[in-house]
Amino acid sequence: MSHMNLRESSLSEFESATAVTRLSESTFTAELDGDWSVAGAVNGGYLLGVIAQALRANSPSAPDPLVVSTYFLGPSEGGSADITTRMIREGRSSATFSVDLAQNDAPKITALATMGNLAGLPDDVATTATPPKLPDPDQCINVAEAPGDFVKSAPLLKRYDMRLDPETAGFMTGRPSGRGLLQGWIRLADGTEPEALSLLAFLDAFPPVMFDLGRYNWAPTMELTAHLRAVPAPGWIRVKLYSRNIAGGMFEEDCELWDSGGRLVAQSRQLARQPRG
Amino acid sequence: MSHMNLRESSLSEFESATAVTRLSESTFTAELDGDWSVAGAVNGGYLLGVIAQALRANSPSAPDPLVVSTYFLGPSEGGSADITTRMIREGRSSATFSVDLAQNDAPKITALATMGNLAGLPDDVATTATPPKLPDPDQCINVAEAPGDFVKSAPLLKRYDMRLDPETAGFMTGRPSGRGLLQGWIRLADGTEPEALSLLAFLDAFPPVMFDLGRYNWAPTMELTAHLRAVPAPGWIRVKLYSRNIAGGMFEEDCELWDSGGRLVAQSRQLARQPRG
Repeated sequence: MSHMNLRESSLSEFESATAVTRLSESTFTAELDGDWSVAGAVNGGYLLGVIAQALRANSPSAPDPLVVSTYFLGPSEGGSADITTRMIREGRSSATFSVDLAQNDAPKITALATMGNLAGLPDDVATTATPPKLPDPDQCINVAEAPGDFVKSAPLLKRYDMRLDPETAGFMTGRPSGRGLLQGWIRLADGTEPEALSLLAFLDAFPPVMFDLGRYNWAPTMELTAHLRAVPAPGWIRVKLYSRNIAGGMFEEDCELWDSGGRLVAQSRQLARQPRG
Repeated sequence: MSHMNLRESSLSEFESATAVTRLSESTFTAELDGDWSVAGAVNGGYLLGVIAQALRANSPSAPDPLVVSTYFLGPSEGGSADITTRMIREGRSSATFSVDLAQNDAPKITALATMGNLAGLPDDVATTATPPKLPDPDQCINVAEAPGDFVKSAPLLKRYDMRLDPETAGFMTGRPSGRGLLQGWIRLADGTEPEALSLLAFLDAFPPVMFDLGRYNWAPTMELTAHLRAVPAPGWIRVKLYSRNIAGGMFEEDCELWDSGGRLVAQSRQLARQPRG
């Protein structure tokens, strides 16, 4: 027990909160942490961290999700969760798994992932996308200082240090731009440097892009696919979040994460149902 | 047998080629058609059509894939394939399934999909993306008339009528633009109007976007996630294909499909390994 405490004390808040305990070769249990919730439901990015911990435990030589596609079947709450992983195919340098997460026997997440080793990828970079131009973090708006109800209903916000570009923070004062664009900076609140699994969480940590379209209700994610493309350099991560196809009661939300070295280290797209009313 | 022939004669070429035969409540067999191949491997978009036929057969009240995430585990060939579907969760108007396709007991595809009813979605449209500006199809370049080896190795090209915007067809004459952009028009060669499942195929039918970056080798797709957002109007479909993050031996390829009514009816993103050499 003292050994366990010692070990935990060397873990970041995020690593501790997403830890899994092995029950068998393919099954794990986790204690979902309600401190990573928004509007009563555990955050999707945090849940990606939890399922990735289970995948990593079963894929030691390919420890990083290169791509993970997560289908959200219902809201998760703080408390115990059961995780099952299954290896579908093992390649030379990567392996594809399915992973399921349930609470009280109700399925909450089903996902597919191909695991690999980000540190072992070739070092070519011919990216044509460019990082978002942002004021320095101390010239941006701390999301945890947003007015009233928004922060109160989102304990998640305290787990991160998130700074919004003032140009895209109009929603905080009731003046959303209508462009469907949020951008800014993110890091873990405890100062831990970014790593593959915290990148997964960053992809779904910012306020919903629909806030910039004046739609403030909770929008349930149906599916989120994340690509991790490089080991992030230490420091702040730039976040760009946008939506271009709002129609038929749904919208897509694209997220880009750029590290301090100017590398596009992660991309995600999610499909969500539009808030009603 | 004569009944079967009668029925097949009323099907489009695409419907016949992607047809599945039920073996049990959850299993199907299909005869993969080598005429939908590129470089000896059955095309990924065609395979999306095949697995979607199996999903549709097991989801009559929610017949359309709203989102499908497909992991390609190895190249498929013409010939027999075994398909297994499993319902993971049934909601009020949608249902989430897993689906696996194997040949000779080797897994070729594992996928997740949420099925729904495109015709039953609300009719709101607040899309900010705009369709690609293209010359008329008869002012564009017929892909099947590309020079030499490219067409010979791709019987798939004859299944479609694909017209490339001359502005993005430089690769055909050895002058790729280097932007990572291909756009043009597509329809089925037999004149059948687009439908949900043919949209899936269109998302992966165009020449690889890497051709516009001067990289002409075959790039194996690791994963492709498709969103279907509306029933397409009859007529030509506009295609926009682009890549922005070419790094670490991989690249993403984004595809947009726009119908003749100017609606963004489908989006996809795939992660692929870069061609070597």
